[in-house]
Amino acid sequence: MNERRIQPGAVSKWILRCAQNDRTMGINPVDVSRQHFPSHFPNPMIRINEHYTKLKASYLFVDIAKRVAACQQADPGKSIIRLGIGDVTEPLPPACIAALHAATDEMARRETFRGYGPEQGYAFLREAIAWHDYSARGCFIEPDEIFISDGAKCDCGNIQEIFAIDLRVAIPDPVYPVYLDTNVMAGRTGHPRDGRYEGIVYLDSTPANGYVPAPPATPVDLIYLCFPNNPTGAVATRAQLAAWVDYAKRHRALILFDSAYETFIRDPQISHSIYEIEGARDVAIEIRSFSKTAGFTGTRCAYLVIPKTLTANDSAGNAHPLHGLWNRRHSTKFNGVSYPVQRAAAAVYTDDGRKQTRALADFYLGNAKLIRDAMAKLGFSCSGGDNAPYIWINIGRDSWQFFDLLLNKAGVVVTPGAGFGRCGEGHVRISAFNSRENVTTALDRIAAALK
Amino acid sequence: MNERRIQPGAVSKWILRCAQNDRTMGINPVDVSRQHFPSHFPNPMIRINEHYTKLKASYLFVDIAKRVAACQQADPGKSIIRLGIGDVTEPLPPACIAALHAATDEMARRETFRGYGPEQGYAFLREAIAWHDYSARGCFIEPDEIFISDGAKCDCGNIQEIFAIDLRVAIPDPVYPVYLDTNVMAGRTGHPRDGRYEGIVYLDSTPANGYVPAPPATPVDLIYLCFPNNPTGAVATRAQLAAWVDYAKRHRALILFDSAYETFIRDPQISHSIYEIEGARDVAIEIRSFSKTAGFTGTRCAYLVIPKTLTANDSAGNAHPLHGLWNRRHSTKFNGVSYPVQRAAAAVYTDDGRKQTRALADFYLGNAKLIRDAMAKLGFSCSGGDNAPYIWINIGRDSWQFFDLLLNKAGVVVTPGAGFGRCGEGHVRISAFNSRENVTTALDRIAAALK
Repeated sequence: MNERRIQPGAVSKWILRCAQNDRTMGINPVDVSRQHFPSHFPNPMIRINEHYTKLKASYLFVDIAKRVAACQQADPGKSIIRLGIGDVTEPLPPACIAALHAATDEMARRETFRGYGPEQGYAFLREAIAWHDYSARGCFIEPDEIFISDGAKCDCGNIQEIFAIDLRVAIPDPVYPVYLDTNVMAGRTGHPRDGRYEGIVYLDSTPANGYVPAPPATPVDLIYLCFPNNPTGAVATRAQLAAWVDYAKRHRALILFDSAYETFIRDPQISHSIYEIEGARDVAIEIRSFSKTAGFTGTRCAYLVIPKTLTANDSAGNAHPLHGLWNRRHSTKFNGVSYPVQRAAAAVYTDDGRKQTRALADFYLGNAKLIRDAMAKLGFSCSGGDNAPYIWINIGRDSWQFFDLLLNKAGVVVTPGAGFGRCGEGHVRISAFNSRENVTTALDRIAAALK
Repeated sequence: MNERRIQPGAVSKWILRCAQNDRTMGINPVDVSRQHFPSHFPNPMIRINEHYTKLKASYLFVDIAKRVAACQQADPGKSIIRLGIGDVTEPLPPACIAALHAATDEMARRETFRGYGPEQGYAFLREAIAWHDYSARGCFIEPDEIFISDGAKCDCGNIQEIFAIDLRVAIPDPVYPVYLDTNVMAGRTGHPRDGRYEGIVYLDSTPANGYVPAPPATPVDLIYLCFPNNPTGAVATRAQLAAWVDYAKRHRALILFDSAYETFIRDPQISHSIYEIEGARDVAIEIRSFSKTAGFTGTRCAYLVIPKTLTANDSAGNAHPLHGLWNRRHSTKFNGVSYPVQRAAAAVYTDDGRKQTRALADFYLGNAKLIRDAMAKLGFSCSGGDNAPYIWINIGRDSWQFFDLLLNKAGVVVTPGAGFGRCGEGHVRISAFNSRENVTTALDRIAAALK
């Protein structure tokens, strides 16, 4: 072994010079030097994933909270109604409550106690999903193509791990921040410039395209889509989805389809699942959640579908089934969803559960209609609210100024569109998640404030 | 723009040649070519994270299951007792059951319903942990240094994301496979060779060092330690832990301390937390779980501690607090643990909960003592079982052959040590997680089989 015995910390400048030289030559200096001098590379030390330093500070909801707190402090007696954050307000459906109690009782007795379950989820839940959410709509999805998780946020964030780092990623604007941030963390982007990350292909969702972007002219490899959309509330027609599936086939791209809000679809022409589109099994992963369907935001259950027909290539051109890759990731880094929670999720598919969750969505959609109608009456052009719990309002002015106006004059909190991306400017999002009384009061106050 | 309009799919060989040329020069061809020709790079397509192809197929428990099934099929009437997998068998403590029921009732009423909670966990649980698990042992850990999660497996797997890819990682052998596999997936290793991954510094745990490896001669950046250990059941003395903390300080390294089995420690000289060691707040992250403490393997709750004093550098030498980095990761990719589950975990710290969980650990330790005594009586040298639920038995012969012998002659399933790493060969792990009756029956049968 021709290793030189140099004490760590006392390592001399020549190694640093050589490393610098390597860097100039375009050779990764760490690989080379560490390989040759494993035991004396200068300053071995714990170092961070530097991609995190590219992240823009996520101040949207913190900023909102600060402004709301300041407003409340200035006038402690003021009534403030929150239509900002997309969190549910109604209790869990009785069918889910009964299932939680029953499963808790099972956990109390040795004979029925459950320890580690399958990482992918229990068959009773995977089968209920395959049957009710897919077979019933004519989609062929097998139970073992469904992976139960503790949240759509986790699935949206984790799924990118099984793909190469140098992919070209397409992400809508405005957008749920998790798609973007998790790709930044993984190193798929450059630094932000003028509010956008280098290396990302942004799909503009604007009044001109009805907030449903068409496939880009540039070929991309990985595409995030979300319908019904957060924050715009827009839904894509079958023809629009078919254009995306066709694009993905032509370019050998993959679609990540987030349908966390599908429970709010009422128009029978709108697809609930990407798999209702011919050929989607070959190009799409779908992510769904019980958060909005059954009020599980604090109970935590979701799922991700990977058809076994989906493949991606390695650099030598060999195809690898993504199902096996995700299964490896999921079973290595995750240990399954809490058993009582899986029972509660399965109760959503009972007769009672289906009636109760339908009523729950109808209730929020009732709020949404009131909001949309009231805002339209005030002269604003609106998207969403008919098949989605969000109403996206084209205010035609600075979204933070409009936020301040509604907060101070009406005591109503909305979300400024600029927080969701460059194309969100000029808009605000109003959420339908609240009591009927709060919604009607808020709308009366907004009308008065804008007179 | 000097882009050339070449149709995708029709891209000519010169680009491929240039890319190949770049590769020969040590320049990443994808970066260069994609940057210059974003819209016409040949064959844009979805590609996999190729590090996954380095993973060894994880056949240990699948292999075990196959052999057990074959044995059962050959003799359908045969009684088989499983002392292999480390899953609990006793029901949840009554205090946890009561808390689950009460929290479920809260979720049934609008006034007490909980939606999204803090991603980091509710204050009621973080404060109970800081007080009972740390302050009570003289460790200074603040509640907001504790991140509640749904499993130690998730935390062990996810924490590496906040670190640089080119770190030198030290991992014990034998070992819980998640430490290794998640670093392989992230790209911190080469391919496996002779059963070990290139680039990993293995810490051999052998009879010679009592299964507690000392710090290596080579400087490393990131160190995985687990005490009480899975699979060896070994515990580290304060002096041994202090040597690791000292090493980490000298080399500016970071220790990931997995103490998922601390509830089984009975020797008052053994540290329950790495933070009992002077200076550990500056060099260690700790991971704990309710899985074994309170039988939560199917209920899912754990936590990770990052002191605010911990930092890691970027490549320019600037220090970054790891607390902020992990908080960003955790709040971007995770949405908090189920509210009823957090209430059940908090019940562990009530007077009743503490008595009940203590009794639970005592019960399994009673099994462990029976196993260790019986195996020692048969002439085997054993580790663990006194402060751990695992007994690691030095059998001095091929571990799969011994596995087969016990399965076929005694109808008892153990875990062959070879499945945990090269140094595991010549050993088997016996788990204390079972009923007293099954344990005593299994031990009688093993004694008879080995006569």
